[in-house]
Amino acid sequence: MRADIHLIPSSPLPRGISERSVAVIDILRATSVIVRALSQGALEIIPVATVEEAFERVNKFPQGTTLLGGERGSKKIEGFDLGNSPGEYGAERVRGKRLILTTTNGTKAFHSVSRGGVVMAGSFFNIGAIARHCLNLGRDLLIYPSGDEGRFSLEDTVCAGMLIDRILKETKGPVPLTDASQAALILYQKFNENLMRAFRLSTHGRDLIERGFEEDLACCAQRDITDIVPIFRDGTIRIGEEI
Amino acid sequence: MRADIHLIPSSPLPRGISERSVAVIDILRATSVIVRALSQGALEIIPVATVEEAFERVNKFPQGTTLLGGERGSKKIEGFDLGNSPGEYGAERVRGKRLILTTTNGTKAFHSVSRGGVVMAGSFFNIGAIARHCLNLGRDLLIYPSGDEGRFSLEDTVCAGMLIDRILKETKGPVPLTDASQAALILYQKFNENLMRAFRLSTHGRDLIERGFEEDLACCAQRDITDIVPIFRDGTIRIGEEI
Repeated sequence: MRADIHLIPSSPLPRGISERSVAVIDILRATSVIVRALSQGALEIIPVATVEEAFERVNKFPQGTTLLGGERGSKKIEGFDLGNSPGEYGAERVRGKRLILTTTNGTKAFHSVSRGGVVMAGSFFNIGAIARHCLNLGRDLLIYPSGDEGRFSLEDTVCAGMLIDRILKETKGPVPLTDASQAALILYQKFNENLMRAFRLSTHGRDLIERGFEEDLACCAQRDITDIVPIFRDGTIRIGEEI
Repeated sequence: MRADIHLIPSSPLPRGISERSVAVIDILRATSVIVRALSQGALEIIPVATVEEAFERVNKFPQGTTLLGGERGSKKIEGFDLGNSPGEYGAERVRGKRLILTTTNGTKAFHSVSRGGVVMAGSFFNIGAIARHCLNLGRDLLIYPSGDEGRFSLEDTVCAGMLIDRILKETKGPVPLTDASQAALILYQKFNENLMRAFRLSTHGRDLIERGFEEDLACCAQRDITDIVPIFRDGTIRIGEEI
């Protein structure tokens, strides 16, 4: 398998994405929320692009079955049940529920790569499980950092680099790396000992601290706290089966 | 001034480029050739996109005044005077001559950013001069690594990071860095002691070694061997005046 990283969400997707595994990463905070919610017993998550679509979709499900979550300008949306802090998505709120989620970068990313062969949600929470799943699939891998409103995101790229690092450690086979993968691996090695330093350097991390979400950063820096691999298929994210 | 890096040539240009300084970087090897040729007394360099255009343009100048240089598939083009190795562009060949240059990535990059406020050619050869020029201009800076056929290039980004490093060291004013600039700075720090290691890791560097151009890599890794700042204006690159 080959491993590449799509460093800039607004750049054109490479060819052949329908044959590849795709790992979507939005550390601060959409894929951290998605992994945590599913690991805490949420049934499924429907990522949508707009607030309007979220309100439309929730009305189609029986009352009491579905929660609205997400953010605009980092803050909880008026009329929504939950914001975009992983800490809000504990079992007591989400077990047995469907979630409709809309965020500035992460939820859009899933739709951008919906043509991918297998589309996963990755975060530091499930990084080891994602690495093993990619190796089991054996397909060429495209890691898709969701970025910051179309721009390069340091924290997402550091997580992409950690995914590359884990894949290299867990396989004896060759994994040719592109220049983007080499760069992400170096960025991960720089912050491996202290992921919070990467968050504090990044534009989006600094912005979240200013808005009072510093606790979320410490939460999102936890590694390997679950083995689930969320899979996006037909518009919905559910826990994938082991292969 | 703010400093950003356009990491992926195929991604959309940011807004406001006509107000900014733009530093085009193609270490292996177009901007290394451009800086060396002008420092060795070439009159001016006309970067063109295609081989056909190069042949058309050369016929419009008096015989004996103009040389054709460049590469396709890293190799010298049939009927051209010079290839794309900086070592070929010594004073004995280029002094007093006009050059028409066409390469796979670098020469196209100048036309991609031709709307820039001030467009410079940067390489390790003139990195300090470029940093000082950017500071003197005081405009927001966009560094434009030419990449590898539209993709991210490790060696160009390492040079971009060195430019950021020099700017930070030569100014006492604030230089806010984007996530892309932070990442490039870290990549530069990783390879600062040994630029050849970055070249040997990069796709394009490895490719040049395989094709027999390893000497070019060592040549292109030389730092601060000239103080010239080549400026691209109205389709032509000439040495800019000090400001």
